[in-house]
Amino acid sequence: MSERKEFRDLATPAEATAAIEDLDLTPDPETVPLREARGRVLGARIDAAIDVPGFDRASVDGYAVRAADTVGADEADPVELDLVGEVHAGEAPDVTVPAGGCAEISTGAVLPEGADAVVMVERTDSVSGGDAASDRTVRVRTSLAPGDRVMFAGADVAAGERALGPGTELGPREIGLLAALGVDEVPVRGRPVVGIVSTGEELVRPGGDLDSGAGQIYDVNSYTTATAVEAAGGEARLYPHAGDDYDAMERVLREAATECDLVLSSGSTSASAVDVIYRVIEERGELLLHGVAVKPGKPMLVGRLVGSERGSDASSDEGSESDGGCAYVGLPGYPVSALTIFRTFVAPAIRDAAGLPEARTATMEGTMAVAERYAEGRLRYMPAGLVTDGGGRTLVYPVDKGSGATTSLVEADGVVAVDPDVEYLDAGESVTVQLFSPDVRPPTLFGVGEDDPLLSTLLDRVARGPRPASGERGDPRATVSTTHRPRYLGVGSREGLRRLRDDVPDVAVTSAPGPVEVDHEPVGAWTREWGLVVPAGNPEGVDGLADLADRDLRFVNRTTASGLRTSLGNAVADLAAERGVDRHDVVDAIDGFDAGTRAHESPARRVLAGRADAGLGLRATAADLDAGFVPVGEETVHVLANPDRVEKPGVNALERAIAEADAAIAELPGYGRP
Amino acid sequence: MSERKEFRDLATPAEATAAIEDLDLTPDPETVPLREARGRVLGARIDAAIDVPGFDRASVDGYAVRAADTVGADEADPVELDLVGEVHAGEAPDVTVPAGGCAEISTGAVLPEGADAVVMVERTDSVSGGDAASDRTVRVRTSLAPGDRVMFAGADVAAGERALGPGTELGPREIGLLAALGVDEVPVRGRPVVGIVSTGEELVRPGGDLDSGAGQIYDVNSYTTATAVEAAGGEARLYPHAGDDYDAMERVLREAATECDLVLSSGSTSASAVDVIYRVIEERGELLLHGVAVKPGKPMLVGRLVGSERGSDASSDEGSESDGGCAYVGLPGYPVSALTIFRTFVAPAIRDAAGLPEARTATMEGTMAVAERYAEGRLRYMPAGLVTDGGGRTLVYPVDKGSGATTSLVEADGVVAVDPDVEYLDAGESVTVQLFSPDVRPPTLFGVGEDDPLLSTLLDRVARGPRPASGERGDPRATVSTTHRPRYLGVGSREGLRRLRDDVPDVAVTSAPGPVEVDHEPVGAWTREWGLVVPAGNPEGVDGLADLADRDLRFVNRTTASGLRTSLGNAVADLAAERGVDRHDVVDAIDGFDAGTRAHESPARRVLAGRADAGLGLRATAADLDAGFVPVGEETVHVLANPDRVEKPGVNALERAIAEADAAIAELPGYGRP
Repeated sequence: MSERKEFRDLATPAEATAAIEDLDLTPDPETVPLREARGRVLGARIDAAIDVPGFDRASVDGYAVRAADTVGADEADPVELDLVGEVHAGEAPDVTVPAGGCAEISTGAVLPEGADAVVMVERTDSVSGGDAASDRTVRVRTSLAPGDRVMFAGADVAAGERALGPGTELGPREIGLLAALGVDEVPVRGRPVVGIVSTGEELVRPGGDLDSGAGQIYDVNSYTTATAVEAAGGEARLYPHAGDDYDAMERVLREAATECDLVLSSGSTSASAVDVIYRVIEERGELLLHGVAVKPGKPMLVGRLVGSERGSDASSDEGSESDGGCAYVGLPGYPVSALTIFRTFVAPAIRDAAGLPEARTATMEGTMAVAERYAEGRLRYMPAGLVTDGGGRTLVYPVDKGSGATTSLVEADGVVAVDPDVEYLDAGESVTVQLFSPDVRPPTLFGVGEDDPLLSTLLDRVARGPRPASGERGDPRATVSTTHRPRYLGVGSREGLRRLRDDVPDVAVTSAPGPVEVDHEPVGAWTREWGLVVPAGNPEGVDGLADLADRDLRFVNRTTASGLRTSLGNAVADLAAERGVDRHDVVDAIDGFDAGTRAHESPARRVLAGRADAGLGLRATAADLDAGFVPVGEETVHVLANPDRVEKPGVNALERAIAEADAAIAELPGYGRP
Repeated sequence: MSERKEFRDLATPAEATAAIEDLDLTPDPETVPLREARGRVLGARIDAAIDVPGFDRASVDGYAVRAADTVGADEADPVELDLVGEVHAGEAPDVTVPAGGCAEISTGAVLPEGADAVVMVERTDSVSGGDAASDRTVRVRTSLAPGDRVMFAGADVAAGERALGPGTELGPREIGLLAALGVDEVPVRGRPVVGIVSTGEELVRPGGDLDSGAGQIYDVNSYTTATAVEAAGGEARLYPHAGDDYDAMERVLREAATECDLVLSSGSTSASAVDVIYRVIEERGELLLHGVAVKPGKPMLVGRLVGSERGSDASSDEGSESDGGCAYVGLPGYPVSALTIFRTFVAPAIRDAAGLPEARTATMEGTMAVAERYAEGRLRYMPAGLVTDGGGRTLVYPVDKGSGATTSLVEADGVVAVDPDVEYLDAGESVTVQLFSPDVRPPTLFGVGEDDPLLSTLLDRVARGPRPASGERGDPRATVSTTHRPRYLGVGSREGLRRLRDDVPDVAVTSAPGPVEVDHEPVGAWTREWGLVVPAGNPEGVDGLADLADRDLRFVNRTTASGLRTSLGNAVADLAAERGVDRHDVVDAIDGFDAGTRAHESPARRVLAGRADAGLGLRATAADLDAGFVPVGEETVHVLANPDRVEKPGVNALERAIAEADAAIAELPGYGRP
């Protein structure tokens, strides 16, 4: 690996914040149409250019009068006025109200000349003295003061008044006021343009073809980061991956620096790629900071990068030249780490440059569900999942212990900041979780355990997916909100039971035969037929477990966490007993028994990919993938609730879904009721 | 006014909610590109179609080995392995690791055949036995188990696993996971299309020309409602105003019913327009509800409307036919009322149809700053403004007592639900404010009083408007967030002092001469020259107040709330004294003295519009509008703080802004320091 100058110490979080604040991300102001101004921030003060209303306006339906004519009038002693005409909203009055006269007027209409007040129709009687309108008079049963029921021109907003100040975020109310002023083009703060450069030869854009054999994976961080940039009020631009060699990286980084207000490299786990970026920043800009004393902030880079000459966006170009380059921040490679560092250090700078107020504080108090130990000597952001216990308390459990798994992205609800001097968080200890967004709420149902196709369908029912096309339409129940947010981790039966013992999940799902040693309340159960998934038509004529041991067949097993694996183990033991041999002899004879795949479809998929002759799986999976199937046995899938969570609505919803699952069970080959 | 069938009683709020829930707003599902999926709601479950990673992946930089070869190795007794090659991320391995061998491997690379573990480079030494790479060996100082530092294929996500459930709102984390799965087209819930039909002949779209003489005003409710619809997760469509006659209204309403999932009429204060809509719904659909026992819900309509045949959107067309018509809701005419009814009854139905969770509860506890009395016999939503007092308590004060002013839109932060049996809310009583949005926060500076151009500029400074173009760029202070949200109501000096006496605002601004009878702390002051604004070049040769009394000139005054008006009154009194006459004689001799306009520019604008010969105003205003000016006097503008708010940061910021205002004062003709 190439040599690099190391910064003597890691920067403190405060130094990192200051370094990024010093970078200038401010975009040029813009003008947008009123209809597109929602969520934007006013760039300049708006003074009213007109009076609102622009005329003396009737506030009620009634009659325009001269107040002087009504002095002393009341129910007992009304005054009669001659009706001289009428004025409707949106019309120029064609009458003048003389002394002793009045004109019918509707709400919002222009007060006619001569009149100085309006009497509401409810306080009048219309008296017809004959056919001709001119003969009609109106009896007024109340006395009025000048200005009664009239909104004078400019009474709402007067021309020249300060209407909205710069920095105002535009919502329905502000946009309504701008509309009242006739403003249809709004000066707003620009959104900082954030270029995202992905690094790592192994990255492929979603939708592209993946060559797993060549170690390719889909680019996650560019999409996570781009979405987070937009959520922070920036405009994200993804730059095509151009290879990790110096020239390619320099070209794309400097192009981005020319066109953007901030360049982020979305992070790479590839040390060589990081080295290359590091050199580009050093040679084509200025490296201000390398590494922050925050786990996971060690790989973070902050600097400036001078744009290339052939920039399309002149103004940003100027901007970036003016202060020695465009802002640059390099994020860590693991998805949760990248998002955590982005939220902590970069998002606030983007919001600020966009003129948005600081993000609403989004924290939640909770108690540790399990103990957690640290060797760390620096501030650590522990990714954390949330679940509410029976008493409505929020429990917090650690997620993703440095695995860099993408699934951690959706398992973690936020992070807990753990001080450098803390080496141990005990179960039951109170902690504060910084939520990934203010909208984050704990799942209403948290399950762990065996991976099962029926379970997936039932979880969808609980979550209430898309409305059934026509039937239920208009049915009130069909329009009830999505009330449940289930979270399910397919960690296998064994691990599921272990976590249930720790009191973390609401329910555990197990298909492992034999008694359950964990405290629980049964929620429901179903049976599923399992066996060997083979290629369609069973070309090798596999006819059971014995074949796996006796013939030269490549087999794909599940991991020991899987209940299916336990069922297989039992069946192998029976076979060994039949033959009067030790089960290990049978196990050793099966090629591939010891390796293991995680999910229920994996073995079948390897078989179909021609990488094996038989795989452990379900009849339902074989049918779904059009593979062959050799039955071996049946097992029962049990859904077990944490005893103190049985009252949780999410658990009840799942219980109901299982009870009503007959149709779904009938649709799945090999499925049944215990 | 036309006859209409009246519903016997007003519906209860619960009945109104149920009626709207029964209407079906559900749009058809859609598919969107991953990059545009932020904030959308997953329409169907996403199962993983691939393993992540798709191969056995090295988690660190180091060497791929056979664990068996390292048994017993440690710092004291390392094992030496022959280096047989290298594997980089994104490459297919071109080596197989034999017993006793190893291959250099980088993080993310494919584990080569033969190897079953990776040792991190930090635990090894590279030993060069000669020039040829083949001669190199690697010393391993630790022993490994199979799988160490390897992420097996599918360990993160396994093909066939349930990744995300239907109803999941898509944020950065979910989009990251979808990217990892290679998903680039996402099935999402549709956004309900909401058609907004504006009514009232008097309404003009912002940007259009306004004929005030004909009583035209700009359309506010369509824009407020459209923005609120989008904030609730719907897609808003504005339909052009087509006139209030039956045929025009029927045409546009039924066109909207054909193309949308919900039609809203954005409300009109014109009774005739409401009558017409009412008839269209009755004759072309079904009227389900008219009027809700909520102030301001009396004019609310709920019903169904059958679309016209010539509909462009076939699917919605079906939809609307299928259940007797498209959903329709008619909102009240006053802006704050329309928004309140929308938030209470319509927004939840739109969020639900879009599949979004219920809106975050957005309420704030506060205490009434002033007493409020009600005649109401029904539930009332009182529009309320918020301000924090010196002790950080949130004070609540009523806004818009039925005036229908558009300024109430930005003066109100939310509504207080007042029960039907409550006739009186006392000052100091605790109330709960339902905020107009979760982002609403009380202004950090709340001022009321005189309307003044310098003050507007200073408020901008406090609010921190757009960044100065180049100078300050890169200056850290220039990138500090917008920390202040000032709110200022130009109610005039007199009203400002009255409200300060009630302890509502933080500061009051007065230019009225004479002592101030209200408890206060001075914040700052400046002087301004006032007089008569006349047409450019002063064609009438007006040379002072005397002319107004002696000659036949049309004068435009300010309202008695204005301090300027008080200064004028004093000057008139002096003139009367000079002449030894009663001041009323002078006042009566001035044509227009008794009428009054609200804001500082209004008189000048009337003069320039040729509607008067002279107007009360400031030299600065005359200069700004290129009008002529006849000086009469100078007055001092005082900014007075509520004594227990002097410590508020917003008040301090304004104090600082005034102290540093010399440049701004120098720019305003006639301005100076006291």
